[in-house]
Amino acid sequence: MTAALAACRSKAPPAALEPRALGAPISPYGSRSHFEKATRFFRPTTIPEEASSRTPLQDTYGIVTPSSLHFERHHAGVPDLDPAAHTLTIHGLVDRPTVFTVDDLKRLPSISRIVFLECSGNSGSEWRGPGESDVQRAHGLTSCSEWTGVRLSTLLKECGVRPGGTWVLAEGADACKLARSVPIAKAMDDALVVYGQNGEALRPEQGYPLRLLLPGWEGNTNVKWLRRLKVMDQPAMTRWETSKYTDLMADGSARQFTFDMDAKSLITRPSGGQKLPGPGVYEMTGLAWSGRGAIARVDVTIDGGATWTKADLQEPVLPRAHTRFRWTWRWDGKETRFASRCVDDTGYEQPSLAALVDARGTNSTYHNNAIQVWKIADDGTITNGIS
Amino acid sequence: MTAALAACRSKAPPAALEPRALGAPISPYGSRSHFEKATRFFRPTTIPEEASSRTPLQDTYGIVTPSSLHFERHHAGVPDLDPAAHTLTIHGLVDRPTVFTVDDLKRLPSISRIVFLECSGNSGSEWRGPGESDVQRAHGLTSCSEWTGVRLSTLLKECGVRPGGTWVLAEGADACKLARSVPIAKAMDDALVVYGQNGEALRPEQGYPLRLLLPGWEGNTNVKWLRRLKVMDQPAMTRWETSKYTDLMADGSARQFTFDMDAKSLITRPSGGQKLPGPGVYEMTGLAWSGRGAIARVDVTIDGGATWTKADLQEPVLPRAHTRFRWTWRWDGKETRFASRCVDDTGYEQPSLAALVDARGTNSTYHNNAIQVWKIADDGTITNGIS
Repeated sequence: MTAALAACRSKAPPAALEPRALGAPISPYGSRSHFEKATRFFRPTTIPEEASSRTPLQDTYGIVTPSSLHFERHHAGVPDLDPAAHTLTIHGLVDRPTVFTVDDLKRLPSISRIVFLECSGNSGSEWRGPGESDVQRAHGLTSCSEWTGVRLSTLLKECGVRPGGTWVLAEGADACKLARSVPIAKAMDDALVVYGQNGEALRPEQGYPLRLLLPGWEGNTNVKWLRRLKVMDQPAMTRWETSKYTDLMADGSARQFTFDMDAKSLITRPSGGQKLPGPGVYEMTGLAWSGRGAIARVDVTIDGGATWTKADLQEPVLPRAHTRFRWTWRWDGKETRFASRCVDDTGYEQPSLAALVDARGTNSTYHNNAIQVWKIADDGTITNGIS
Repeated sequence: MTAALAACRSKAPPAALEPRALGAPISPYGSRSHFEKATRFFRPTTIPEEASSRTPLQDTYGIVTPSSLHFERHHAGVPDLDPAAHTLTIHGLVDRPTVFTVDDLKRLPSISRIVFLECSGNSGSEWRGPGESDVQRAHGLTSCSEWTGVRLSTLLKECGVRPGGTWVLAEGADACKLARSVPIAKAMDDALVVYGQNGEALRPEQGYPLRLLLPGWEGNTNVKWLRRLKVMDQPAMTRWETSKYTDLMADGSARQFTFDMDAKSLITRPSGGQKLPGPGVYEMTGLAWSGRGAIARVDVTIDGGATWTKADLQEPVLPRAHTRFRWTWRWDGKETRFASRCVDDTGYEQPSLAALVDARGTNSTYHNNAIQVWKIADDGTITNGIS
């Protein structure tokens, strides 16, 4: 590492900046420095209530996404819900239909889990070669939080699911009443009704005061502003699981109920839109995750895929959570392509774009988990290198 | 659990609140709901730049403290530092004195760790029996974040510590130049120079743009706004390690350089100042941590210490991090005292206040890690039950 550090050692004398006056006082609720400018990205739209915003993955650290920068995907805007008035109703094929207040839920046995959420439309721009210029625009619809709530199984057992209750319709309190059907097996397994995010109340954009959390499943099934769960003997076939959020295949058929988010990894720094100041040693870092379990391995290439080397995984490596990986490399100043690929603990390996297109065609927007290749030019400029 | 849920089941019909209009649009940087009111606590003071504010532990979830609610302890206010101008100088007994810019540091191999920080003055009000009325006022000078930065050993190895370099003086860029001496062994072990907190830049109140992080060591040694590290052959004996932050014993001698924060646990919910609505089943939850390693076990009592039962620990249980524990209990409506105690993986057990006072007397403000007892009256009112 001596060479790396020697290369970056500043020759300048210490800055003269030495505050002599008292700084700012203590305060009730802090905010970030005014020097920090990272924001969620979105293009101007005439309907910003039915839109998405993207996490600045190139500017985030570790595995926890700041709640203020968690990606958004709303279909009718963010409702302003009073937690004292909001309730969750469980009904349908149950013995004891029940209305829970938020306080009722907070009194029950709770659980906290660090879990990623990814919109199934993430990376949708990259199906037909390079679409977006940087990691935020191309892949910023994924974030990771520490969520706290109640196991849905606790609530369903209390209500008594009747024989034949095989699906649960989850409905939000937003104006469009976004609703998805969830198999009872998932609902009874690791599904949560969440009221906490990163130590405080769930953020409004994430469903305040209550959301469904289905670890590892596509974002839109994690219904926000959750107001109703109806146990049914079949899926409800809502518009969000028929006309939207299905995957059109090359032959015109559609994959439906593609819940799991497959294993994916991204090098987030350095990445598209950035420029290396010159040849030398750099840290390469990124995120990997899998909706089916924990990340088992991440490999990186700096020669366009000819050779791959194992990256370091930051502990703790948690199932269905972002996993931070790192690798220190020397850039020789020549044009090349670099990328990461991951394997999860089911043995599933992240595919190349060619392999993904071979299997699924290019009609679909959703569930693109292909390897992201970045290209570095001999002047250090980094661009989208998908080909 | 059926009884618990039956007890809290609401009989009211679903709330009529159903938004029909579009909600708020997507936004660049989110904030919490206006219904949420939790804040850091502090009493009015004529010098709010030399003061502390406390985390609302009774209102937090999981193990990550929201950065906006991380406790504060400033000695000369929060300086407004431009990261483009700020530098870290390493000098003294080194072969290659070096000035690092923030960008230099970000280019080096990084690490992320979830680690608690606790002010050694935390719980200082409780040395002589019940001091404060609630968990925030008594114990709110502890918080936990995911920190990202560079290992200090990486920097020191590059600079080349000379033989005889046994201590490192760390100095902040605040107006009082808070400075603490750190043994070289800690500096070369797990010390970090941190620039990231909970996924984004370190917050101003936590040392933006750079702070020292000494996992498990008393808060004030984790020097904020870090500007200088001087390698020395002895401690500098700054005012912060002589006239302040030493522990006056009963015999008039003082313990100095009491770096480690000993194992401690707290029931945070229910806790002082809260009121249970009536007899029945409740979740009891709290936090445990140890500066010497990981929490191995937390026990809880609901009969004033006559019997203890093992609480559930939330995974992941990380060394030198807050660990969330939980236990479900039935309150019978009678007056009693409840408390938690923890054991860390070195075998150290959290002491009773009597045992702590027996060992240390009552002259000291710092390093009170005694068991916190809460008293519940027959009307459900909870008060500080230390005796």
